[in-house]
Amino acid sequence: MKLNKSSLRLYAVTDRAWLGKQKLSEQVDMALRAGATFLQLREKNLDKEAFLQEAGEIKKVADQYKIPFVINDHPEIALACGADGVHVGQQDMEAGNVRALIGENKILGVSVQTVSEALKAEKQGADYLGVGAVFSTSTKLDADKVSLAVLKEICAAVSIPVVAIGGIDSSNLPELAGKGLAGVAVVSAIFGADDILEATANLRRLADEMIGE
Amino acid sequence: MKLNKSSLRLYAVTDRAWLGKQKLSEQVDMALRAGATFLQLREKNLDKEAFLQEAGEIKKVADQYKIPFVINDHPEIALACGADGVHVGQQDMEAGNVRALIGENKILGVSVQTVSEALKAEKQGADYLGVGAVFSTSTKLDADKVSLAVLKEICAAVSIPVVAIGGIDSSNLPELAGKGLAGVAVVSAIFGADDILEATANLRRLADEMIGE
Repeated sequence: MKLNKSSLRLYAVTDRAWLGKQKLSEQVDMALRAGATFLQLREKNLDKEAFLQEAGEIKKVADQYKIPFVINDHPEIALACGADGVHVGQQDMEAGNVRALIGENKILGVSVQTVSEALKAEKQGADYLGVGAVFSTSTKLDADKVSLAVLKEICAAVSIPVVAIGGIDSSNLPELAGKGLAGVAVVSAIFGADDILEATANLRRLADEMIGE
Repeated sequence: MKLNKSSLRLYAVTDRAWLGKQKLSEQVDMALRAGATFLQLREKNLDKEAFLQEAGEIKKVADQYKIPFVINDHPEIALACGADGVHVGQQDMEAGNVRALIGENKILGVSVQTVSEALKAEKQGADYLGVGAVFSTSTKLDADKVSLAVLKEICAAVSIPVVAIGGIDSSNLPELAGKGLAGVAVVSAIFGADDILEATANLRRLADEMIGE
């Protein structure tokens, strides 16, 4: 698919840490209904078969809302389930190899933390970058922090769109204004919310405001 | 598909009045690349075969960007090309009959000009409403005006999302703030623009700002 940078405005990243009575597909449905604009399925502890089955279920929900859907770390799962693309980190497969594997028509997102990683990822064919952790995060305890000054430098250095990630919630989201972002990626402030609909709608409003400034 | 109301933020309606060197599909590609969030194909003078062929071409572009795509006035074309839905006016097929024809999984949009038409369309199964002309329009010369006061009453009266249409451009779009709209539908300010990319990106920014207020 072709990526419009405003599709990255409010980028939801799944996390099964808060799965209670609801299924992940139900939580995702709420997030997309309330205004999330992009979806990444992130699974760290599922075996391949269970991951593929889940990816198929979640893709159905994303397709119902026509929301771009990418798989974290696993190009082969992305291809097998027909996702729109894949998102890889610096510890995963090299971006250039992922691009070669998935072809030109899939979306490739890459996590970076420095200007040089950003330029390299862009050169290797990334369609967008994820930069973080911009704030302290409970969902990725090993994540190094990226300062807002470096975030701004990265946005200025590349021509592809950039989303910030890591500990972003309704209280700190406005601090990201003026950095050159296309959007924000959110995990716990959506999927850990008591009311996913209300939390997502509020984050979307804040993200729209933040981008406008 | 399932409609998220923020998908209606900047609703592009095609018009071949300004087709010059570019094909309509190229113009649509630019509008979607620059941030239009919804697409309606409106054709008044094509025969059925040509309309269906064009609808297939335009649908491909909308699918590439995962943008909801509806056909103006012709449910049979919408079904034949696999569009996401159909948009009808008060002079077209009755909304209830269109809903019966297209089923529950397609989007139905209805043009209304009064609160009573709005309530009736909602009851008959409309997923969203188009209200206008809110300003003077060059593309639909026979369109009656709807006052901004009535627009606000309609938004308050229904629980489905509402977009304003008719003569909306970058100069008057901000006047629509505070009415309860989900978005704005634009024809000439996109497809009649010298630079569709720039015009659309600017309208999207203004629509985001207007909704945020």
